[in-house]
Amino acid sequence: MSGPAANFEHEDRIMGEHTVASFDEDLAQISKLISDMGDLARLMVSGSTKALLNSDNTLAQRVVSDDAIMDARQRELDDRAITLIAKRQPMANDLRAVVGSIRMAGDLERIGDLAKNIAKRVGTVGLSVTPRDLSHSIDAMAQLVLIQVQGVIEEYAAKDASALAKLRNEDERIDVKYTSVFRELLTYMMEDPRNITACTHLLFCAKNLERIGDHVTNIAENAYYVLTGSQLPANRPKQDETAMSAPAA
Amino acid sequence: MSGPAANFEHEDRIMGEHTVASFDEDLAQISKLISDMGDLARLMVSGSTKALLNSDNTLAQRVVSDDAIMDARQRELDDRAITLIAKRQPMANDLRAVVGSIRMAGDLERIGDLAKNIAKRVGTVGLSVTPRDLSHSIDAMAQLVLIQVQGVIEEYAAKDASALAKLRNEDERIDVKYTSVFRELLTYMMEDPRNITACTHLLFCAKNLERIGDHVTNIAENAYYVLTGSQLPANRPKQDETAMSAPAA
Repeated sequence: MSGPAANFEHEDRIMGEHTVASFDEDLAQISKLISDMGDLARLMVSGSTKALLNSDNTLAQRVVSDDAIMDARQRELDDRAITLIAKRQPMANDLRAVVGSIRMAGDLERIGDLAKNIAKRVGTVGLSVTPRDLSHSIDAMAQLVLIQVQGVIEEYAAKDASALAKLRNEDERIDVKYTSVFRELLTYMMEDPRNITACTHLLFCAKNLERIGDHVTNIAENAYYVLTGSQLPANRPKQDETAMSAPAA
Repeated sequence: MSGPAANFEHEDRIMGEHTVASFDEDLAQISKLISDMGDLARLMVSGSTKALLNSDNTLAQRVVSDDAIMDARQRELDDRAITLIAKRQPMANDLRAVVGSIRMAGDLERIGDLAKNIAKRVGTVGLSVTPRDLSHSIDAMAQLVLIQVQGVIEEYAAKDASALAKLRNEDERIDVKYTSVFRELLTYMMEDPRNITACTHLLFCAKNLERIGDHVTNIAENAYYVLTGSQLPANRPKQDETAMSAPAA
């Protein structure tokens, strides 16, 4: 199991089959936690956007509560990973897998935070009636994000490095969609000042979805590194085009 | 240096003074990197807000370039930390220090990202003239954030756990200021639709400053844990009040 440790000085250690099997068990538990966190992240993203589009305060509240579960799972994963490093002293690619899990858990926890932030805005946005076209645009953006969240979990579980590389590049579609939602929101605000409060909250919701996409990208890059031991070529620039130029309005 | 390892099963290892000294040297290098990243974060936050308030595109561009240095330093720290764990197999509080450094570096890198995002909006916002009152409010918020960034670096270097605990609670002042800037921006947008584009960018800038405050809070909590081995009581809720209720406008 322990891979090439060319980069590390280390003494040979006497390690029985039993110890190695236990390391694998520990690592499998950590992978299980990542997978659970991934499922929860997907539920939270899907729940928060549904709550937003249907002004469903009960569902929004559930997403807010789910975030506490997410945080607890991240702490559990961190504790297990640190204990594993201390107890088993893994080398090279075993160590990479453990450190990669810590990082992936960090990104999943951030996705939960962002979904919670969307959920917390449901009460405020719900006060106004969202125009149908706008709902449709936000829904379309949310669907793209959900596909990415689901995909990264599945492809990490399937250990499919090339699918992860491909998925990373799909984030661009979310960025393009975000830019168009941003422009649409500005138009609504300009049309009628009474839309401004609700639209600024929707702006943050759209930005949060765009950032969830960025965290999926990070997870894909980390998962790729864990699986292959090499970094994906040339970090895809995380574009928020709206930050660079004033959208035409 | 190696502390009580009550929570970890481990075999006694033969460890000469030389080895221990090298561990301390390795750890000192990591601490130096954290301190460098902290200085850079402070420069980036200060540069990006100055650039925003003075429409200084050259300074904004420097902040954007600095982010690449920040990213490189984080990668270097991660590599060193992982190599250190693999090579030295630290136990208990040594391990805590290394893992804590990885986490702090993650938050510092995020602060750099957020400063870069503010810098990238300078060109867009600069097209319009920012009202003096609004500049003053954003400047006041930026000053609070800078004090926090500077403070957390200094108090971590000084190993002052009680100052870190106190600093964590100061984040509330940033949140309060953010809520007031948010309301002010909505007012400007409602007054004149021509302000909307610039004000939405300023809204994101203010939100980024508020989030920089949250990352400072994370760093303070992590630094406290590294220094004391115990968690700060009851996670202070990270309040973005604007997400919970519609500001009066």
